[in-house]
Amino acid sequence: MSAKQIITAFANSPDRGRGLARDMRVRWALEEAGEPYDVRLVSFAEMKEPAHLALHPFGQIPTYEEGDLALFESGAIVFHIAERHAGLLPRDAKARARAITWMFAAVNTVEPVIVDRSMIVLLERDKSWYAERLALAEGRVRVRLGELSARLGSADWLDGAFNAGDLMMVSVLQRLGGSGLIEEHPNLAAYVARGEARPAYKRAFAAQLAVFKAAT
Amino acid sequence: MSAKQIITAFANSPDRGRGLARDMRVRWALEEAGEPYDVRLVSFAEMKEPAHLALHPFGQIPTYEEGDLALFESGAIVFHIAERHAGLLPRDAKARARAITWMFAAVNTVEPVIVDRSMIVLLERDKSWYAERLALAEGRVRVRLGELSARLGSADWLDGAFNAGDLMMVSVLQRLGGSGLIEEHPNLAAYVARGEARPAYKRAFAAQLAVFKAAT
Repeated sequence: MSAKQIITAFANSPDRGRGLARDMRVRWALEEAGEPYDVRLVSFAEMKEPAHLALHPFGQIPTYEEGDLALFESGAIVFHIAERHAGLLPRDAKARARAITWMFAAVNTVEPVIVDRSMIVLLERDKSWYAERLALAEGRVRVRLGELSARLGSADWLDGAFNAGDLMMVSVLQRLGGSGLIEEHPNLAAYVARGEARPAYKRAFAAQLAVFKAAT
Repeated sequence: MSAKQIITAFANSPDRGRGLARDMRVRWALEEAGEPYDVRLVSFAEMKEPAHLALHPFGQIPTYEEGDLALFESGAIVFHIAERHAGLLPRDAKARARAITWMFAAVNTVEPVIVDRSMIVLLERDKSWYAERLALAEGRVRVRLGELSARLGSADWLDGAFNAGDLMMVSVLQRLGGSGLIEEHPNLAAYVARGEARPAYKRAFAAQLAVFKAAT
């Protein structure tokens, strides 16, 4: 990799250093790849300004810059890193296609129901419908977790060795932390713990925590 | 492509032939690639049975089989097809990475707010919170559409020539059909119409409509 890789992250992470912001996925992938990177912190106001919108049309983090290449979307950035380094995507073409399938499953089938639950908890706590809606949303999360748990079974990872599909899925599941929902499936709880035990994950987590501590 | 490609689709599409089910994305990609394919129809009951769950752990459609390779997730299947045929992903490495970014943006940033709105309309119409929740959800959709419209501007496609990113984004936006929300941004309405005018789209649409007509 010739050009220096630069990512963006929250100047003030709303999760207070818990590592749930989407820059963690990119940090983790870069650590798995053994790639150095710089981080540019952006405030919530800066995220909606033209300079950042040129990098990220939806005004979010993370973004990724490498010379004159600019990308956004954590899934796409992780995929870009994974394509260029050993260890994040299988070499076998069929196993690689299945790993990419799990990346999409993480962001398009599992993450939406989890984000819906988080949005209710964050934004609808004072609404008359809060309890009923939360129960409905948690029901939808439970369906997905049951299906995922059944597929994972007693395996360590979703399809063979750890790959970018697991990186994305573990990251998505972490957003249920504190809800007790993951713990209903011991194999999923162990799966998340297995991801968090990886040295690359720990380095990435420490790096984002340092940003939070420096800001407070 | 040596082995015959087989996809699954709803035996009884809940959209009554409007082409909104996720098999349309795969059909469209296969038509753009000029690839023949077979379709196996599955009922809602069959989707939750072990034979189908072996192909799709979340019990949905579409799936994709090619010899002993089995994939699920429309985004992953479209990507698999796009990687193997000219015309769906740019050859230039940077343009290719940006096209993949738009694929992930379609399914992870734009589709979730649109699906949330659809779920409210479909499943929460009799709830006390219906009107207020729908207004909240449509507000979130409007934010994303405004950002997407600003990025698209007067361009025909999101990044250079038509590619798999546009195929996914147009497919996601179509799910707002009838809501009037797309029409608030004439450039997005023209973008969707431009996708629907492609001969490959028309062939895919006719194929899924034929399934619906045969079932009724």
